[in-house]
Amino acid sequence: MTKLIEMAKNATAVKAQLAQLSEKQKNGALAAIAKALRENTAQILAANDQDIAAAQAAGMKESMQDRLKLDTVRIEGIAAAVEQLIELPDPVGKILSGETMKDGMRLINIRVPLGVVGIIYESRPNVTVDAATLCLKSGNVCILKGGKEAIYSNTALMKIMRETLEECGLPADFMQLIEDTSRAAAQELMGLAGYLDVLIPRGGAGLIQSVVENAKVPVIETGTGNNHIYVDADADQAMALTILDNAKTQRPSVCNAVETLLVHQDIAEEFLPKAKALLDAHSVEWRGDEITRQILGAQVLPVTNEDYQTEFIDYIMACKVVSDLEEAIAHIAEYGTGHSEAIVTKDYDRANRFTNAVDAAAVYVNCSTRFTDGGEFGLGAEIGISTQKLHVRGPMGLEALTSNKYMVLGSGQIRG
Amino acid sequence: MTKLIEMAKNATAVKAQLAQLSEKQKNGALAAIAKALRENTAQILAANDQDIAAAQAAGMKESMQDRLKLDTVRIEGIAAAVEQLIELPDPVGKILSGETMKDGMRLINIRVPLGVVGIIYESRPNVTVDAATLCLKSGNVCILKGGKEAIYSNTALMKIMRETLEECGLPADFMQLIEDTSRAAAQELMGLAGYLDVLIPRGGAGLIQSVVENAKVPVIETGTGNNHIYVDADADQAMALTILDNAKTQRPSVCNAVETLLVHQDIAEEFLPKAKALLDAHSVEWRGDEITRQILGAQVLPVTNEDYQTEFIDYIMACKVVSDLEEAIAHIAEYGTGHSEAIVTKDYDRANRFTNAVDAAAVYVNCSTRFTDGGEFGLGAEIGISTQKLHVRGPMGLEALTSNKYMVLGSGQIRG
Repeated sequence: MTKLIEMAKNATAVKAQLAQLSEKQKNGALAAIAKALRENTAQILAANDQDIAAAQAAGMKESMQDRLKLDTVRIEGIAAAVEQLIELPDPVGKILSGETMKDGMRLINIRVPLGVVGIIYESRPNVTVDAATLCLKSGNVCILKGGKEAIYSNTALMKIMRETLEECGLPADFMQLIEDTSRAAAQELMGLAGYLDVLIPRGGAGLIQSVVENAKVPVIETGTGNNHIYVDADADQAMALTILDNAKTQRPSVCNAVETLLVHQDIAEEFLPKAKALLDAHSVEWRGDEITRQILGAQVLPVTNEDYQTEFIDYIMACKVVSDLEEAIAHIAEYGTGHSEAIVTKDYDRANRFTNAVDAAAVYVNCSTRFTDGGEFGLGAEIGISTQKLHVRGPMGLEALTSNKYMVLGSGQIRG
Repeated sequence: MTKLIEMAKNATAVKAQLAQLSEKQKNGALAAIAKALRENTAQILAANDQDIAAAQAAGMKESMQDRLKLDTVRIEGIAAAVEQLIELPDPVGKILSGETMKDGMRLINIRVPLGVVGIIYESRPNVTVDAATLCLKSGNVCILKGGKEAIYSNTALMKIMRETLEECGLPADFMQLIEDTSRAAAQELMGLAGYLDVLIPRGGAGLIQSVVENAKVPVIETGTGNNHIYVDADADQAMALTILDNAKTQRPSVCNAVETLLVHQDIAEEFLPKAKALLDAHSVEWRGDEITRQILGAQVLPVTNEDYQTEFIDYIMACKVVSDLEEAIAHIAEYGTGHSEAIVTKDYDRANRFTNAVDAAAVYVNCSTRFTDGGEFGLGAEIGISTQKLHVRGPMGLEALTSNKYMVLGSGQIRG
């Protein structure tokens, strides 16, 4: 029996207990975890120092080191996020629907935890606490696999959480971290059919693609956002500029930022120079089609098909002038990843046509794509943003970590 | 470009059109399809004759030939089932939830079709019409792959449906049948990432296992039901006998039939002989543990671990005497497939403990497992019974073939 199979069996052994924990018990454990994280800040920082030292020795980019870095403020933020989960309603046990069946039995459809949730993620150590506590609140046992860059931090955080569970009189195995950070361990996790009820990848496009291609367990695909803003001939151009600026530059590294600007040909000559001037303030690099370059000049690089396919998550703006709404919709259908898509227009019919025809988790009229977010959508917490259509689409909160069960209460009924 | 990629592109090209069809248009097409099936009965029967002739030449079992066989009554049944779909409400377009966001935008969560649905199934030709019309009503383009035994029947049925769509002024490619019945074609279908929004296998355990293991697209696992009835010490034994008889013998070939009887040790000596006498009327073969054999005699075969794992779908009853409810729950956790599980008891606390602790799509107190069914649960139609926890669990009706989309309607809002 491999180490991972052993962990999977441990998870299976305690999943029924966690599924039936009361909200009060779960909230008590969450409060204790938040407290323990604060009290053990020095221990966490010492472990994080080891990760940072290894990262520096390996010549990791500054921006990547920053994702890895913990300090007292960040640890306080992690603990506070755990406390916020206490305030959220427990999704488990809600009666979703029900009826009295024709023979008199009560049919009750009740919300239950998924069971055992695997989460595979990259460098940020805060995800270890975030994912484990979201699973705890939703009644799910978790098996986590973080990136090797954060292994010291992750191990320290998990040790604190597991010890805290035991102090609360609960099994430590509600939460487990795979300490083997090899590719082989990731492959084995993806193959844990019969143990994992779902595997959720959180990270870059490469990780997500690898999980989707290799997993033999149900997967929720998250994250990649190759998003567009279409500025219609009838747009309020001042509004379009504000929205474009927000969607591209407020936080370009996130999945709800915009990557490609589509502009109606009738206004391109007027709109594009204003858009360029605005984004120049953030040194945004433009890559445009032929008409864009005719309007904005040859310092705009020629856009490639690959650019249209790329989630830059950077200060880069692809741009295409389109002949009409239908061309914009077709472009989005071809290149979009089904995350967040926006139209800016004053025309009622075209707004409707866009929201109906564009196939994405979130479609926007006259506002920024940056709102696709669990907090903004009122979910309170977020385990990721689903870009698949099965199970859940868009921001995933606690309910996304649940399933349902039918209970049928009879008095001797048989089927005729 | 392979034939299947061409079909996938055809499906993608028309999915937006189908997603936006009105309920009236979809119902019109369904009515026309039902009519065309009736009018072309002779053509369907001629094709079916070719399948039957091939089956006979290949020496197919009578019971399998019966699954394949069509006649005027069965074709009428298929047409009538299509007409029943007309009566069901269109799931698409329902507003699932919504709110006014803090900056004043309207957030609207609306139900949309999944998009392109693949369905892979075995010998029954009625599934071709059933699956295609369920997809049509729920706004989904479908790509079907049936078994090679039914290829003539399936091809004839699909031809009629596609011609009817065209006569209704709709694209024939709303529905496509893969005529290549090879294993390689099945493998290619399972690998159609980027085209298929979901792949649903309908058939035996082997088919389902193969799809779950090999698919690179989201899958809904259906069907396998290795189900148990636990007869508690406090059971009404007459009721337990009625329920056992119904669950085992009313229709043993279906997934909601029971396979293993678990009996509390305190009543085993009294209950088991009555149970055996009852099932003897249907020549049910018993396979029991040691205590069962001590009670019922050596003509009961010794049960093996493999028996406990097997969905017999036949007149075979595995039987185990357990020391208490907890042993029953543990046995179900180890061997059950998460389909339908029942307890017969008069004890309130043990009924609750069973329904809470047993992890299955449907858990029953004092009634037969045979009720796990889309029709019985009020869904009106059924595409299968999900035994996975992601997306949907239990009987799947039209809503199981849908996803959601967020529409955000603003007036210039940006994220601060």
